[in-house]
Amino acid sequence: SALLHNPLMNIIKLFGPIVNGQLADNYPFVTMDDFELSCKGVYRALTIREKYMRLAYQRFPLTTSQYLRDIEGEPFMPEHSVQPVFTSPPKEGEDPFNTKCLPENLSWVARMKDGVIYVYKDAAEADQHKPIENMPAPHYETFIDDMNFLIALIAQGPTKTYSHRRLKFLMSKFNVHEMLNEMEEMKELKLNPHRDFYNCRKVDTHIHAAACMNQKHLLRFIKKSYRVDADRVVQNIKGKDVTMKELFANLNLHPYDLTVDSLDVHAGRQTFQRFDKFNAKYNPVGASELRDLYMKTENHIDGEYFARIIKEVASDLEDARYQYAEPRLSIYGCNPNEWTKLSGWFNKHRVFSPQLKWMIQVPRIYDIFRGRNFVPHFGKMLENIFMPIFQATIEPHANPELSIFLKHVTGFDSVDDESKHSGHMFCTKSPKPEEWDIVKNPSYSYYIYYMYANITMINQLRKARGMNTFQFRPHCGEAGAVTHLLASFMTADNISHGLNLKKSPVLQYLYFLAQIPIAMSPLSNNSLFLEYAKNPVLEFLKKGLIVSLSTDDPMQFHYTKVRPNWVPEPLMEEYAIAAQVFKLSTCDMCEISRNSVLQSGLSNEEKTHFLGADYLKEGPEGNDIRKTNVAQIRMAYRYETLCYELNLIKEGLKTD
Amino acid sequence: SALLHNPLMNIIKLFGPIVNGQLADNYPFVTMDDFELSCKGVYRALTIREKYMRLAYQRFPLTTSQYLRDIEGEPFMPEHSVQPVFTSPPKEGEDPFNTKCLPENLSWVARMKDGVIYVYKDAAEADQHKPIENMPAPHYETFIDDMNFLIALIAQGPTKTYSHRRLKFLMSKFNVHEMLNEMEEMKELKLNPHRDFYNCRKVDTHIHAAACMNQKHLLRFIKKSYRVDADRVVQNIKGKDVTMKELFANLNLHPYDLTVDSLDVHAGRQTFQRFDKFNAKYNPVGASELRDLYMKTENHIDGEYFARIIKEVASDLEDARYQYAEPRLSIYGCNPNEWTKLSGWFNKHRVFSPQLKWMIQVPRIYDIFRGRNFVPHFGKMLENIFMPIFQATIEPHANPELSIFLKHVTGFDSVDDESKHSGHMFCTKSPKPEEWDIVKNPSYSYYIYYMYANITMINQLRKARGMNTFQFRPHCGEAGAVTHLLASFMTADNISHGLNLKKSPVLQYLYFLAQIPIAMSPLSNNSLFLEYAKNPVLEFLKKGLIVSLSTDDPMQFHYTKVRPNWVPEPLMEEYAIAAQVFKLSTCDMCEISRNSVLQSGLSNEEKTHFLGADYLKEGPEGNDIRKTNVAQIRMAYRYETLCYELNLIKEGLKTD
Repeated sequence: SALLHNPLMNIIKLFGPIVNGQLADNYPFVTMDDFELSCKGVYRALTIREKYMRLAYQRFPLTTSQYLRDIEGEPFMPEHSVQPVFTSPPKEGEDPFNTKCLPENLSWVARMKDGVIYVYKDAAEADQHKPIENMPAPHYETFIDDMNFLIALIAQGPTKTYSHRRLKFLMSKFNVHEMLNEMEEMKELKLNPHRDFYNCRKVDTHIHAAACMNQKHLLRFIKKSYRVDADRVVQNIKGKDVTMKELFANLNLHPYDLTVDSLDVHAGRQTFQRFDKFNAKYNPVGASELRDLYMKTENHIDGEYFARIIKEVASDLEDARYQYAEPRLSIYGCNPNEWTKLSGWFNKHRVFSPQLKWMIQVPRIYDIFRGRNFVPHFGKMLENIFMPIFQATIEPHANPELSIFLKHVTGFDSVDDESKHSGHMFCTKSPKPEEWDIVKNPSYSYYIYYMYANITMINQLRKARGMNTFQFRPHCGEAGAVTHLLASFMTADNISHGLNLKKSPVLQYLYFLAQIPIAMSPLSNNSLFLEYAKNPVLEFLKKGLIVSLSTDDPMQFHYTKVRPNWVPEPLMEEYAIAAQVFKLSTCDMCEISRNSVLQSGLSNEEKTHFLGADYLKEGPEGNDIRKTNVAQIRMAYRYETLCYELNLIKEGLKTD
Repeated sequence: SALLHNPLMNIIKLFGPIVNGQLADNYPFVTMDDFELSCKGVYRALTIREKYMRLAYQRFPLTTSQYLRDIEGEPFMPEHSVQPVFTSPPKEGEDPFNTKCLPENLSWVARMKDGVIYVYKDAAEADQHKPIENMPAPHYETFIDDMNFLIALIAQGPTKTYSHRRLKFLMSKFNVHEMLNEMEEMKELKLNPHRDFYNCRKVDTHIHAAACMNQKHLLRFIKKSYRVDADRVVQNIKGKDVTMKELFANLNLHPYDLTVDSLDVHAGRQTFQRFDKFNAKYNPVGASELRDLYMKTENHIDGEYFARIIKEVASDLEDARYQYAEPRLSIYGCNPNEWTKLSGWFNKHRVFSPQLKWMIQVPRIYDIFRGRNFVPHFGKMLENIFMPIFQATIEPHANPELSIFLKHVTGFDSVDDESKHSGHMFCTKSPKPEEWDIVKNPSYSYYIYYMYANITMINQLRKARGMNTFQFRPHCGEAGAVTHLLASFMTADNISHGLNLKKSPVLQYLYFLAQIPIAMSPLSNNSLFLEYAKNPVLEFLKKGLIVSLSTDDPMQFHYTKVRPNWVPEPLMEEYAIAAQVFKLSTCDMCEISRNSVLQSGLSNEEKTHFLGADYLKEGPEGNDIRKTNVAQIRMAYRYETLCYELNLIKEGLKTD
C-alpha cells in the first residue's frame, strides 16, 4: 500500500522490480516515450474490452473501470455497471420444469441479417431493418478496427517489452509477498473456524457432459445396463430393431468381460499432441455405436442412459456437498431441430440438479457440414444455432420445453482443435456469413465474432424480458495462434485453457488488468498439449491472473477410483495434484476455489451464499473469509497490486 | 530373447547400448581388464547378500542364485532356497485372538552376548555360551570384512563406470522396449477380462500407523470424540483427573472450531529439507497432549481412540476391497515393558483386520534415552527391543497377548532422520553394544547390523518352532550417506525410499541384480527431500528395479477427500499422481501393484490368491495376467533383461 499511495514516485523507479534491487539493470530498457506509448495502447485495449463486455451483459472489473474513468477525467458510476443474470435455484417445493410461470408470448419478429439476428416489432419493420431500439448490435466495421488495433498492439515492440517487464515484476512481487506474508496468511486461516479447503465451494468450470463420468463409472453403467436391459431394443438399423444383446454381439464383445483397459477411453501417452486420436477416445471400445447409446441425447432410447449417467454424477456431487460443475452439451447448428430435441431430452428425463449449471458447446465444424451439404452456407449454421433461442425468448409458451431448458443454461462455449489452421483471415473484406458458402472453415476469430454478436443480441432481448442471460466462455489458447486469445479478449466473459498467454506478454498483461477468469485443466493439457510441470497455471496464479481449476474430461484424464457407492472425485484429483506438484498453500487453493465460483454461472443468490453478501465488491471488502477461507492479506495484496499497475497506466497518460 | 540366447556375442558389443547405435562411442571406455575386475566385484557382492538373506530367512532371486551357481560350477538347487513365513488370514469363524492354539512352552533360555541374543538349552549351557545347534549367528568379523569389501567396491573406478554404463543401457533398452511393445502390452491387457488397474491388488508397503488416517479423518474423529466424551477423564496429571473438556480448555481451544488449517498436521512448503519441523507435524494443533490422546497406544484411556481410528481406516480398506496396508507401530527399546503394553493394546481393542499387516518400527534414538539415563548402554536398548520376542517365542503361554500380536507382525523397520550424521564409523574396533555407554548415537550401519543379527536369531528360533518369521525392512536411502544403502544391501529383505541409489551406480546396479524391492513415496519426498518431478521412481522402474508406491504419512502428505462415509484414498492419490506426472501406462501401474504385493508381508496363501499359484516362479511363468493385469511381454522383457545382465557377469568371469 505504500507503493500504491505514492503517485509522485519517480517514473523510472516504477519500472524496476524495486523490491529485489534490480533497478540499475532495468533502467536503460524503457524510455519515457516507450512508456507513454505502451500506456496509451493498454488504455485503449481496456476500453475496447469494456465496451464489448457492457454491450453483452458480461463482466468488467469495477476497479479497472474506475481507473479508466480517472484517466478520461470522467466520473465513475459503479451503479451503471452491468452484470449477467442467472436463474436462481428452485425454492423449496418449486418444480424447475414448471412451464406455468414463463413470461407471455410477444408478437415480435427475429430475423438474421449479415449473420446477426435482430429483433423487430413486426415483419414490416423487419423488412425495413428497423430493429427494436435499445438493443444495439456490435458495429461490424468498428469491431474489425478494434481488432486490428489490438493485433498491432500485441506485436508492438515497446508494449511487448513493457508488458513483459510488468509481468516479471508481478512475479517477483508475489514471491516477495509470499516470503513475507505466507505465515500471516496461514495464521488467518487457522483462526478461521469451521472453514477449510475441504468445505469451501469449488466449481468445475470446464467439463464436457459426454465425459463427465470417469472411466470406471461408465464401465459399471454399461455392465449394469446390460444385466437389466439385454433384450431391450436400443437401435433401429434400416427398419430392423436391434436389442442390446444383438448390438454387443455385432461388436463381438460381451459387457461382462469389459474392463477399463478394453473400454479404452482413457487418454494415454498416445494422445499427446494428437487431438485427432483424443477425439476417438470418446468411443468406448472404439465403437461409435456405444458412444451413441451411452453418451448421446439423441438415439433410439431418447438419450435415457446418458441422462441417467449424468444424474448419477449430479447425485454424487450433491452427496459431496461443496462441489459444482458446469457441463457442456452440444448444439452443432446442422439443423434447426437440435434445440427441440435437446430440450426435449432435458425435460423428459428431468436432467436437473442444483449442482449442475449447463452450458452449450458449439463445435467449429462448419466445413464438415458444408462438405456433406447439410447446410448451404455459414449463416444457416448460425441461424440453426441461435434462431430457436430468439423464438423461445419471444414466444416462451410456443416453446415451453426449450424455454425451461434455457433458464438453466448459463453460457456458450466454442470448441474444437485450435491447432488446426483455417488459412482465413477475418477482416472487412471477409464474406458475410450468408455469403460464406465455400467448404473451407472460417477462422477462429470469425466464429468467435458471430457467436459473440448473436449472444449479445440474445442477452439484450432476454434482459429486456426479465430472463436470464448467457455468457460467452470459449475454449481459447489451448493451442494455435495467439490471435485466438485476442478475439476472446474482445468478446468472452471468460475462457477455458489460456495456455498460449505464455506466448504473448501483451495479452497476458491485458488478461491480468481486465481480470479475465481462465479455467485451466493441467491434467488435460498433460495428456494433450503440455507436460504437467511446464503448465503455466502456477505462474499465472502468482502474477494475479484469475485462474480456476477444472477437469475438462474426467473420463479421459482422471483416475480417482469410483467406490462401491459411486463417489467420483476428479475435481479433487485436479486440486490435489496441482497442490502437490506446485506446492500450493491452503490459501492458494482456496483462492482458486473462490475464483472458480466467481467465474461460474452460479446465480447471484448462490454466489452470495458461497462467497458472502459483498462478493461483487472488489478487494478485501468483497471477501468473506468465513465462507471462502481466503486470507484478507492475500485479498489486499491482489487488490493493491492491481491498483498499482492501473495507476502506472494513469501516470503514463498524465505525462502527455 | 535373441540377445539372451547368444552367449558367444562379441564381448565389446555387449557394452554399448547396441540398440541405438552408440557402439562406436562406447567402445573406448571399458577395457577387458576393467570388465573382469567389475564382474568379479559384482559377483562377490551378490554372494554376500545371498549369504545374509539365507541366514535370516529372507529372499534372494532364484534367477540370480542360478547364475551364481553357474559361475561357481556348482549345481543349482532351487528347493534349498529359503522363504519367509507369514501368518495366513484366519479361516471363516476362526478368532485371530485365540490363544489356545499357541505352541507349547519350552524350557530354553535366551541371553544376550555382544549385542546378539542366543538361545540355549538351559542356563548351564548359556553360562558356557553353547547355543542350540543349527541356529548360527552372523559372524561379526566376516560381516565387517564383507562390508569393507563392499565399501571399496562402490568407490572403485572401473566398477563405477561399468555399473553406470549398464544402468544407462538398461534405461535405453527399456525405452526401446516401450516404443516397440507398448501397443502389444496394451493389447494383452485389453484382452484380459475382469481385471484392470482398479481391481488388481495393491499394498501400501510403507505407512506409519500414527499417520495412517488423513487430516480430515483425524479432524472428524476429534470432533466426534468431544461430542460424545467431553466429560470423560482422559488424563491424570500429578494425581488430578483431567476430563477431555478440561484438556481442551487448558489448550485454549474448542474442537467445534477446529478445521484442518488449525489442526495443522499437513506438511507444507515449510517442511522441505526440515525433518525436524516435519516431526512436529505429528502434534495436532501443535499440542503433544492431543498426539498422546489420539495417536498413542499408551495413555490414560489405554490407546482406545488410536485403536478406533486405525479400525476405521481398516474398515475403509475392507470396503475398498483391493487395497492392503502395512502400518508401523513403534517399539523404542527404552524399557522392557513396551511389548507387554503394545500387545495388550492390540488384544484389548482387537486391532486386527485382514487388510492390515503389522510392522514394528524402531527409532534410532539411543542418544536421547542415554542422555536421560533411561538405559545404561546400547546393549540394554537392544535387549529391551528383542528379548521379549525371544521369551514369547520360547514360552508362548507365559506371554499369550504378545504371542498373538507377534503372529500378526511381519517385519521390522528402522526409522529416523537419515541426514543426521553420527560421526561413528562401524568397524572391528567399534565397542560392543554392552560397552557402548557414551551418549553419542552409533552409526546407521551399527544399528542395522545389530537389528539384523537379532532378527536372524529370532527367525531361526521361530522357524524351528513352526512360527512366522520377520523381515527386516528399514527406511534407507531417504537422505544421508550412501553407505546406508550398502548396509541394507547386506541385511534387508527390502527397503523404504532408496532415493540415494541415484548417487551410487554400483549400489543401484546391485539392487537391480538382487531385485531388492523398494517402497517409494514420491509425495512424501516432495514434502521433505526431493521435488516430485525429480523423483527417480520412473527411472528406477524403467531400469527394472523393483519399485512399489506407498504413502508414508497420509496425515501429512495426502489431500484426497474423506467422504461423509469416510472412505479415504491416499494410496490411489499416490498412484494417480505418479501416473499423471510420469505418464505411466496401465501396464506400468499394474507392474508396480504386483511389486507391492510381492514386497509385502502378505501370507503365501494371500499372495497365491492375488498373484496366482506360481507367483514364486520368476519370469513370465510366475505371472498370472488374469490376476495381476501385467502383460506377459513385460514379464518376459524383465526376465530376459535380468538374465542378460547376469550372463554378462558370467562371461566376464569366464575370461579368467
